[in-house]
Amino acid sequence: MEEDVLYHLDLGTKTHNLPAMFGDVKFVCVGGSPNRMRAFAQFMHKELGLAGDGEDLADICAGTDRYAMYRAGPVLSISHGMGIPSISIMLHELIKLLHHAKCRDVTIIRIGTSGGLGIEAGSVVITDMAVDSSFKPRFEQVVLDDVVVRSTELDRDLAEELLTCSKEIPDLPTLIGHTMCTYDFYEGQGRLDGALCSFSSEKKLDYLKRAYDAGVRNIEMESTAFAALCRLCGLRAAVVCVVLLDRLEGDQIRAPREVLREFQHRPQRLIAAFIRKRLGLRPPAGNTLCPTE
Amino acid sequence: MEEDVLYHLDLGTKTHNLPAMFGDVKFVCVGGSPNRMRAFAQFMHKELGLAGDGEDLADICAGTDRYAMYRAGPVLSISHGMGIPSISIMLHELIKLLHHAKCRDVTIIRIGTSGGLGIEAGSVVITDMAVDSSFKPRFEQVVLDDVVVRSTELDRDLAEELLTCSKEIPDLPTLIGHTMCTYDFYEGQGRLDGALCSFSSEKKLDYLKRAYDAGVRNIEMESTAFAALCRLCGLRAAVVCVVLLDRLEGDQIRAPREVLREFQHRPQRLIAAFIRKRLGLRPPAGNTLCPTE
Repeated sequence: MEEDVLYHLDLGTKTHNLPAMFGDVKFVCVGGSPNRMRAFAQFMHKELGLAGDGEDLADICAGTDRYAMYRAGPVLSISHGMGIPSISIMLHELIKLLHHAKCRDVTIIRIGTSGGLGIEAGSVVITDMAVDSSFKPRFEQVVLDDVVVRSTELDRDLAEELLTCSKEIPDLPTLIGHTMCTYDFYEGQGRLDGALCSFSSEKKLDYLKRAYDAGVRNIEMESTAFAALCRLCGLRAAVVCVVLLDRLEGDQIRAPREVLREFQHRPQRLIAAFIRKRLGLRPPAGNTLCPTE
Repeated sequence: MEEDVLYHLDLGTKTHNLPAMFGDVKFVCVGGSPNRMRAFAQFMHKELGLAGDGEDLADICAGTDRYAMYRAGPVLSISHGMGIPSISIMLHELIKLLHHAKCRDVTIIRIGTSGGLGIEAGSVVITDMAVDSSFKPRFEQVVLDDVVVRSTELDRDLAEELLTCSKEIPDLPTLIGHTMCTYDFYEGQGRLDGALCSFSSEKKLDYLKRAYDAGVRNIEMESTAFAALCRLCGLRAAVVCVVLLDRLEGDQIRAPREVLREFQHRPQRLIAAFIRKRLGLRPPAGNTLCPTE
């Protein structure tokens, strides 16, 4: 292909010097919300002790509002929106970007929010295996007339390394578990409070308890596609999500905004500690501050 | 339910007076990009001859970056991100909002972009039926352990009314056809230019030609879930998408930005004319201008 237009990132091989812009990227962190991923890049900027205050980081994808992308040293921070289709478009174009930029030894981590199963709100779950709504570690991809089944196992060593890291951070309850990935937030996750609901509270709880018994500790909407695509493309990948509520106790997210903000910062703190450790850097002073989003 | 928190819209029944804010809404227009939906609200503001220049419309969902929402008179303009999961979260919360606000006789229209099949770039397709990747008019929704199959037929009278409207607008090639909805932009739409590709150009073209023979004229990523959910909740719904390229001729979107911008404005012009007609309003002077996004 003479030219590759990464349409949804507003980047391309003819319009941008991708090796110069991205060749030294070693960590890619992705998450749903553009504001949160900007805040994460600003936080990493401080955590890595980079020059300047990091408040005015430019959105590398400023020409489009589909995704937002920021850089802090060797760390790329990108938003992916909500759901499998949205993250899948971003990943296809990101993986092509890393290829065109000739990046080597890249670790990719999804940091996000999720509903918990039988664990306290605020807990951080490191995914060992992403499972579908039947609790199976697989991702079904439609390719023309066929449905191709792909494995959703994540890098076990990376998950253990992250768990070890978490133990050195105060007030960061962290565990390894399966993550269930659904195509919908309401009916698909057994919520009773959507615009449509055709099942009882008993049926919902029976389903969620069976998920718990199968090893599921949290539920979100991107991990199976993320795990499958990264695995097939040879990227070491992890999923680290905080839980905003325990779904065995309710459906609505009612915690005060300040509490949710602190929860959402937890995966960021863990990943910052992990990246610093990998780079052999010490934490800067005051690193437990929660940045403004 | 004592309180209903519409989490992803950052609205709720206790924190907001939804009937006062939304009770008189008659048209809801939804589309993927937040910037485009702001531009549409500004455009509608002018088209409806409302007071002020409409440049400083406030984002009603400013407390979250998941979706953006703007109002121009009886028209609500909301972004839904990319893909079925993302639009489905927004629709559940929007439909609850319309219910809480006691809205009556609401028409909902998705205006978007798509890949065309055998039609010229810039054509506008009004969907009569949203079909899945097997060309069937159905949406499969996982509900706990079951897969529920839902109809994806759209309002035929509304589609015809829109087509009639289009005939009165110069330079707006418009047709009615089936719209294929996929879970992925690359492999799921038979593109050869994703990070992964396991099929030949011949297999791709064979698939796309069969889609054409089944009546498919464009491909996007939200219409089946949109049609199914609106139909079940009794909302008259339409899907109106411009095509950015002919997929029988290529995969990459290469048209210059200015051309794409004018294409993306076409569904907006059609819907503005339709709403004006419904409200018995005449077009303002200079209504063919393409607003800045």
